[in-house]
Order: sequence, then C-alpha cells, then structure tokens
Amino acid sequence: MLRVALLGCGTVGTGVLELLSRSSLPLVVRGVAVAHLDRPRAPVVSPELLTDRPFELVSQSDVDVVVELIGGLDPAESLVRAALEAGKDVVTANKALIAERGEALLALARSRGRRLLYEASVCAGTPVIRAARALAAGGVWRLAGILNGTCNYVLSRMAAGMEFDDAVRLAQQRGFAEADPTLDISGRDAAQKLVVLVREAMGLVVPPDAFAVEGIAQVRRGDLLAAREQGYALKLVAVARRDGEKLQLRVHPGLIPLGHPLAQVEEELNALLIESDGTGEVFLRGRGAGALPTATAVLADLLELMTGAGTMTLATPARLSIVPHGEVRARRLLRIEVADELRAVRTLTDQLAAAGVSLDHLSAYPVPDRGTVLTVLTGRAPGANLANALAALVRADLCTAPVRSYLLEELGEEGT
Amino acid sequence: MLRVALLGCGTVGTGVLELLSRSSLPLVVRGVAVAHLDRPRAPVVSPELLTDRPFELVSQSDVDVVVELIGGLDPAESLVRAALEAGKDVVTANKALIAERGEALLALARSRGRRLLYEASVCAGTPVIRAARALAAGGVWRLAGILNGTCNYVLSRMAAGMEFDDAVRLAQQRGFAEADPTLDISGRDAAQKLVVLVREAMGLVVPPDAFAVEGIAQVRRGDLLAAREQGYALKLVAVARRDGEKLQLRVHPGLIPLGHPLAQVEEELNALLIESDGTGEVFLRGRGAGALPTATAVLADLLELMTGAGTMTLATPARLSIVPHGEVRARRLLRIEVADELRAVRTLTDQLAAAGVSLDHLSAYPVPDRGTVLTVLTGRAPGANLANALAALVRADLCTAPVRSYLLEELGEEGT
Repeated sequence: MLRVALLGCGTVGTGVLELLSRSSLPLVVRGVAVAHLDRPRAPVVSPELLTDRPFELVSQSDVDVVVELIGGLDPAESLVRAALEAGKDVVTANKALIAERGEALLALARSRGRRLLYEASVCAGTPVIRAARALAAGGVWRLAGILNGTCNYVLSRMAAGMEFDDAVRLAQQRGFAEADPTLDISGRDAAQKLVVLVREAMGLVVPPDAFAVEGIAQVRRGDLLAAREQGYALKLVAVARRDGEKLQLRVHPGLIPLGHPLAQVEEELNALLIESDGTGEVFLRGRGAGALPTATAVLADLLELMTGAGTMTLATPARLSIVPHGEVRARRLLRIEVADELRAVRTLTDQLAAAGVSLDHLSAYPVPDRGTVLTVLTGRAPGANLANALAALVRADLCTAPVRSYLLEELGEEGT
Repeated sequence: MLRVALLGCGTVGTGVLELLSRSSLPLVVRGVAVAHLDRPRAPVVSPELLTDRPFELVSQSDVDVVVELIGGLDPAESLVRAALEAGKDVVTANKALIAERGEALLALARSRGRRLLYEASVCAGTPVIRAARALAAGGVWRLAGILNGTCNYVLSRMAAGMEFDDAVRLAQQRGFAEADPTLDISGRDAAQKLVVLVREAMGLVVPPDAFAVEGIAQVRRGDLLAAREQGYALKLVAVARRDGEKLQLRVHPGLIPLGHPLAQVEEELNALLIESDGTGEVFLRGRGAGALPTATAVLADLLELMTGAGTMTLATPARLSIVPHGEVRARRLLRIEVADELRAVRTLTDQLAAAGVSLDHLSAYPVPDRGTVLTVLTGRAPGANLANALAALVRADLCTAPVRSYLLEELGEEGT
C-alpha cells in the first residue's frame, strides 16, 4: 500500500483524488496540503485530510510519496527538496520546476536513493517524457513539437477567421488559457517543455533562457492565410535539432508543410515528433493540459513507483465477458460477386429487410470474367443478422466467390 | 555498470550491440548465446563473447540482466524462467512469449523480486507499451491500432494498384515480411500484440485465441477502391473496446474514415490510438519492426533498469554549442507591410540580392487603411543575412509595421 501526500488541491489535485476514487489501486492518501483550509472543495476531497502545514506533511513518517501540484518555484522547490531529504519519492506536475531546477533536484534524488518523476509536467496525459526516454538510446537528433495548447488553439481559431484577441478570450472561456495567458502566448511555456524533452531524449542539459523564444502575439490572420497559400500551416513550433556538436533550439511561429502530421494538429491538441537514428520518426498526439489528463499522468508515475520494484501489477483478472462477433452492432461494407445480378440484388434486399438490416448504399460493377461485384453499405446491425442474410444468398447459389464483409470502425464517435 | 547477457544474435541482437557500441552507457556485455558458433557475424560481435550454452550464461554470477532475442516459446520460455529464477532481470523482444505466457512470467518475476520488461515485443521502437501503461490509470476504454507493418504495407501497395501476391513479394524483398509471412498475413501477429496492449492499458488478461481473428488474404484490390469511394480506408485493424463489463476484441480488415489519423498510416508504419476517460485520445505512430527500432526499445528497457533504482541519469553534460539563430540556414516566409509598394519591392530585391538571399515568391495584396502587404518566400539562407536585408528596409523607412518572418521547418527532409 503506497502512502501518498498531496501538495496542492486545485483542479489537478481534485482530478487526482477523483481518478483514485474510481480506481482500485493499492494507494492511500495521508494528507492534502492546501493554502486555504476554509475554501469550498469537491466532495472527493475528505476535509479531515486537509492541512495548511505542507513541510510537516512531507516529512511525516507514514508518507512514502509526495505529489507536488502547487506549481511555480516557491515554495514548490523547497517542499520537493524537503521531501527528498526526508527519504520520500516525489511525483510532480511542475514544468517550471523541472525545466529550471531539474538537474539539481534529480541529483538530490539520486544522492538519497529516491525517485523524482514528472510525466505530468510536459503535455499532461500525452506520455511524451516516457516516449522521449524510450527513444533516447536510439540517438535522437530532432524533436519537433506543438507543445502549447493555448497557442495552437488561438492559431487554429485565427486560421478559421477569428481575430487574435477574440481567439484568446475564447481559449480562456473554454479553459485552455489562463486568466493571464502571457506564459503561453510568449512561447515561454513551450520553451520550458522543450528544455525538459531535450534532456530526456538527447541527454543534454540546456537552461530555458539559453535560446531565443518568440511567441504568437505578432501573428496576423493574413499571415496564416499567406502561409497556407504557399502550402504551409503556421504553428507555434518548438524544435531541437542536433548536428554533431551543434544544437539548434527554437520556439517560434514557424511553417510546417500542410501534408505533415504536425500541420494537422488542430485546436488545443499537442504533438511531438521524435526522430532518431534507431527508429526514424515517432509521432505522438494528444491533449496537453487539463485536470484529468494531468491527473492521469500523475497516477502513471505513482503506478510506476509501485510496479518499478516489480512487486505489483495493475492487471486485474476482471470478470469481463468477451462480446461474440455476431453481437457487435456496426455498419459494414459488403463485396459480393454474383453472376445473376438482378436475382442477387432482389434476394439480398429481401433478406436484409427480413433480418432488420438497412441498406444505405448499393452499387454494381461488372468485372471481366467474373460477372458483377455488388458493393453494399449496410446500416448498423448485429453481425449475426447480417450473416443470416448472406447465408441465404449462398444457399440460393447466387455468389460466385466468398462474400467479403468489412466492419466500419466508429472512431471519433461515441456510440456502438 | 550493468552486466548483460544476450540470448540470440540475429539482426536484432546485432542491432543491440551496434547501438551499444555507439553509446556511452555504463553497460557491459558478458556473453552472447547463439545456436551456431561458427556462423559469420558482424564486426560488432566480439567472437570471445559467443557461447552455445545459453542456460549456463543466464545463471552466470557476473550477469545482472538477460536480454532474450531468440523468439518463439521454446527454448525462450525455459531460458527466461531460468534467468528469473537465478535472480536476473529480463528484457525481451519476444511478442509470442509475452502474449502467451506473460502472466505466469510476470508472476515469477514478482515472486523473485526481479523485473521483466518487454517494450520491444510490441511495435519495436514505437513506445506503445509505455504509452499504454502511462494511460492505464485514466480508464482506457478503447484501443484501435494498425499493429502489423507487413499487412499495412501490402494493403498500401494494393491501394496503389498492385496485386496481393506481388505486394507480399515486395514486402519480403524490402525486409518488411518474413520468408513465411503467414503469422503476419493471418492477423495472428496483430492479435498477439493486441493481447499484450489490452493487459497493459486495461489491466485485462485475455488469451490470444479467445477472439476471432481475420487476416488480409481475402482482400481484393477492388475492395480497397470501393471502400475509398465510400469514404473509408481499408486497414488491418486491431480493436479492443470496453463497455462496462463487456469487452469487444477484433483483428480484421476494417474500415477507417479517411480523415482519421489511423487512415493516414501508410506503408510499413504502425499506429495506436488509446482512448481513456482521463485523457481522451492519444495517438502514436512509428515504425513497428526492424533491427535498429527493436534494438532501441531493448536499450530503453535496459536504461530503465539502470535509472529505475534512481542511481543514474542518461543526461550527459556534453559540450555542445547552441547555434545562434542568425546562423540557422532556412527558407523563410516574410510578411512586410509597406506604403510605397514599388520602392519597397525594389529596395527589398536589391537588398536580398546583396545579402545572397534568393527570392522564390513575391506577391502583394492591398490592405484596407494599411497600404500593401508583401508576401515573400526566400531561398535557404542564414537568418543574419536576411535580418541585414530587412534592417535596410526599416532604415529606409519603408515599413509601416514590424516585419514578420516565419521559418520553414524542413520536416521529412534531411538537409539544413
């Protein structure tokens, strides 16, 4: 049973408690340090866990791991130091802390035999830190990312015709931008993320202020259109590129060829392209902010602390039933080769109607030496109903080849 | 210093030794077990390390970690068991072993306090295992992947007009398909991968033969075209979908909407979409096979064993110089607002020519109340040269607003 102390209980802290309440992880929260004991909290926050004495909490003997969700350098840095010095592992979502003080804190953790994990500090639930680390041994020579969701959202809205100020306001309304969006808009947030990723992927330690950073405040709508006319998407990009002993680093509004996966990253999404000698291009895309995405990454680090020692697994032998294919409701594309087209179509439509399967599209093409191929798109129906209808076609000896049936995967939609 | 024993020295084993020879990891290879001592080997394989007695190697007292690269169940399973029982950590690239015997082997590892890592077993260097694990705490409800590079390559070639048999042969010639491609073409390889990912992401243990699997042998070229006409790409998809206590699992040629990122995964690439309550959609794409990609994942696991205990970091304080922005050679898109268009264009072209910057495109649009905006696309040149040319324009008082300059990122290309 891992015993956890939370520092900070804003949206991310509440998200962590929310996810924990849904999970069956062998993990118990010993205390939650907050600045204001009397502020109203979500029901998932047990009032008896709250304390306004974080330094006492992080050195409590019944705590194994400290989760730092305060943000900023002060007092987060002192608390993380105190926790490591007290022999606790630390999980943090604090990007500024890791970008500015990462080396010193990692050294402290090593000297104490503790671990400092920070997947949540960059791109929230999109596991770019783990990916960067996994590819490090392959010789990473380029990172190219869209690392700030606020900027990407604003530029996406501007590309769709909105003015800069209106787009920023909309981002704020929708929760993608802070009340003071300066850190995002200026590109400094993306620069901090780039610095962390460069260390993880390339093993190079660079201070966040060692390279020029340009934000999106100067971008005009017409610039986005002009870029598109020339075949490019205008994005706030963060790029690190290693050439032998030289390293290029930049964060700025740059142009990406329209066909490239990075150009297709829209709205508040983040993405990262990692290029290495060992694996070529690896591309990741996902949400880069938000309470639950960030909380998911925090829990991933807690899980790693639990499984890292090889003492547990998340795998639960749950009593789930595997759905037989015949019960899967879906639309399907059929390809049916027939000799007698008219009789086949009549039989097919009769049988589909009898099986309660609607017919959304039907076309027929002659095929040299093989009669006719029918292309049929069905409505949503259980596979078994369709199989029955097709069996009747076969029984009537109407098919000249086995029917091919392709299920339409409903990606990006909720229903099944 | 981590002491490693390799089991197997085919293309992946050689790749591991190759990457190790290029890296400065604190890691030493104690022995390499092979079936045939007298077979010719790459220069990176030191002959004095070779042995044909794998069981002796895995229990050697000067070995910390055993890397299993033999493949298949026999003798790989016995060797991995022997290694764990001898107190060694194990890293394996063996998909069949993890899919078929993963639970028992993980239980053995836990009982001995050892770790069993297998990032390389699924999608090689694309870190899908780490991603699946990182998102597990967020409540993963769907996995949808293109997990077999051979099938995706064959279907991509067929979509471009090639016959099935020719496409398979080409895949073999290009090294994407085995001499006997049955395991790939039948869909069973993808099913094994799906089973591993379902355990990592959903915590559910499913035997690989618990659900129906359909390969691509029946797919006709016309089916691909008909699917496209209806707005879908036909891919070998592997899908797991959880609905409460019900689990759908399928591997089959299925249809993906053309606009979806999975539909744009072409040639031998693999991809995985992970959907969770916590993070929404996370998408990964990369190479899923090959010697160096697989070796990169093996090294990632070795690195994790080294860093997991918090005792080391890959970060090297290398003496790299950060390239000043002015030295970065690139094409750039300029947006220049001017009042006197003709004089501005003349000055600009003169200055660019003097600075050695070629002009690939120039257009001018009138802007209400703001004169004219020039859109300029330059050839590749150092930023400083361009800055000088633009400074002259400003000095001549020709600009009515700050010039916006956007660097074209050369993604997908090698040169800079």
